[in-house]
Amino acid sequence: MDAPGGAPGNAPPLAGRSIGFIGLGLMGRPMCRNLSAAGAALIVQNRTRAMAEALAAELGRVQVVDSPAAVAAATDLLIANLADTAAVEQVLLGETPAGVLSGLRPGALVIDMGTTAAGATRRFAEAVRAAGGDYVDAPVSGGVVGAEAASLTIMAGGSVAAFERALPVLRTLGANITRCGEVGAGQVAKIANQMIVGLTIGAVAEALALARRGGVDPATLRQALAGGFADSRILALHGKRMAEGSFTPGGKVVTQRKDMQLALDLAAEVGIELPGVALNRELWDRMIEQGWGELDHSALIKLYED
Amino acid sequence: MDAPGGAPGNAPPLAGRSIGFIGLGLMGRPMCRNLSAAGAALIVQNRTRAMAEALAAELGRVQVVDSPAAVAAATDLLIANLADTAAVEQVLLGETPAGVLSGLRPGALVIDMGTTAAGATRRFAEAVRAAGGDYVDAPVSGGVVGAEAASLTIMAGGSVAAFERALPVLRTLGANITRCGEVGAGQVAKIANQMIVGLTIGAVAEALALARRGGVDPATLRQALAGGFADSRILALHGKRMAEGSFTPGGKVVTQRKDMQLALDLAAEVGIELPGVALNRELWDRMIEQGWGELDHSALIKLYED
Repeated sequence: MDAPGGAPGNAPPLAGRSIGFIGLGLMGRPMCRNLSAAGAALIVQNRTRAMAEALAAELGRVQVVDSPAAVAAATDLLIANLADTAAVEQVLLGETPAGVLSGLRPGALVIDMGTTAAGATRRFAEAVRAAGGDYVDAPVSGGVVGAEAASLTIMAGGSVAAFERALPVLRTLGANITRCGEVGAGQVAKIANQMIVGLTIGAVAEALALARRGGVDPATLRQALAGGFADSRILALHGKRMAEGSFTPGGKVVTQRKDMQLALDLAAEVGIELPGVALNRELWDRMIEQGWGELDHSALIKLYED
Repeated sequence: MDAPGGAPGNAPPLAGRSIGFIGLGLMGRPMCRNLSAAGAALIVQNRTRAMAEALAAELGRVQVVDSPAAVAAATDLLIANLADTAAVEQVLLGETPAGVLSGLRPGALVIDMGTTAAGATRRFAEAVRAAGGDYVDAPVSGGVVGAEAASLTIMAGGSVAAFERALPVLRTLGANITRCGEVGAGQVAKIANQMIVGLTIGAVAEALALARRGGVDPATLRQALAGGFADSRILALHGKRMAEGSFTPGGKVVTQRKDMQLALDLAAEVGIELPGVALNRELWDRMIEQGWGELDHSALIKLYED
């Protein structure tokens, strides 16, 4: 059994705990490193097993298993960090390999840290609860850099009890951790986050492109606007990339496009029109048509310059 | 004659200088107070003379005159802070009352601190130069609060020599002062600033409205996103107003609409399409149609909630 949250004295905060982790992608691997550094023993599973073996060789105290069901059978706390909603569905409910639900221990907690459709998240949570477990959605913002530095912004949804149970684990992975509401609320907040990112990139792209045509150097403009009402993380980071024409991702155009579609899907579900997001989604489509889908989303400024 | 920039020892930085100031509106009055506190003697003119008389009674070392020409005849450095391009044209080139050009001293510097169309600014600068003067456009961001605190962001355009001549004066009025390029570049930067403000308000409005419909409290969402990629001055300030439903201006919807039109006009002039701005301008039009033109621009969220 896991120790009941934290550990006394100078022991690492997750000493003695075992945590399951499914999905060892660009984000999942540094997250596992941080969990391991915090003292947790890991049971890991990944579609490509070699990735899991490599992590086990690197970290120690890592057990590699062959299915999500085997992860679930071995621990009371599982984290899934997967690319999309379909992957989460497969990992939870799949048959080959056997999904989490076929191995779930009574009382186990599943934490979904990927960006998943909010409606699907609620369905997944119901399935897990029906099997005797509990569910927290906890998608993140901050990218690989944030995952490595354990400085991720984490937006969580779930009951207060489930959230508090997840909290010691989330604290080893991120900095600003907020319970946004019941199950699915983390995903709603994440979509809102992505909407603001996509639309603010659009704002900065149009402003910098107009400025350049109007005789103002974009780098000078950024400096002029720093600290004022127009200032933002996007202006500081993505505005710099636009000024320099340096579009190595970072967040990719195709991902931004996917997220804007998630926002439109959620908007349709809850009955609200989002004209800004709809236009923004079209701009990402144009980017992809131009063959720029794999560039950093700050490359949006190219639409205005060619 | 004015002292040549600054003053020695502990004297106020503008001690012994005389500065003309035309346009004593919500922004102009606190700016005059800061110039006066920095030691300048002011020659002021305002369409409504009573406003100028009141300021003279309050400050001392203020001479009230009846025309822009009379201001120009009395000093080598004039500031105009006016509501729009038409007002600047009237003050510079007008006949009744006589405009700045009919009184301009050789070598005088005119600083236009209002938000004026960039193309018109260049024409005004040519007229002033033809009359033997020089011109700096130096529009500001930061509102009445920034004007009072002398913390305005100032975006300047003009020759290096003219900018450096204006700098000691601008330093008594603002904090982040940037020369963005030749004459007109300050206006281009200001338009870019207003574009980002308007579009970011649009981004935050759509995100907070969707979040609320999706079961996430907007105030909680703001907290969750603080410090992440979605964070901005707009999220912090205008997002708070949206979460609280408190729409006392601040920046008005009608002003934001005017600025987005300025951006579209400049875009047409330099041959660039700005679909985000075009949509955003329509949203402000809808706000005005709804009778919400005098509310703070953060009221945009109302379009998504009614």
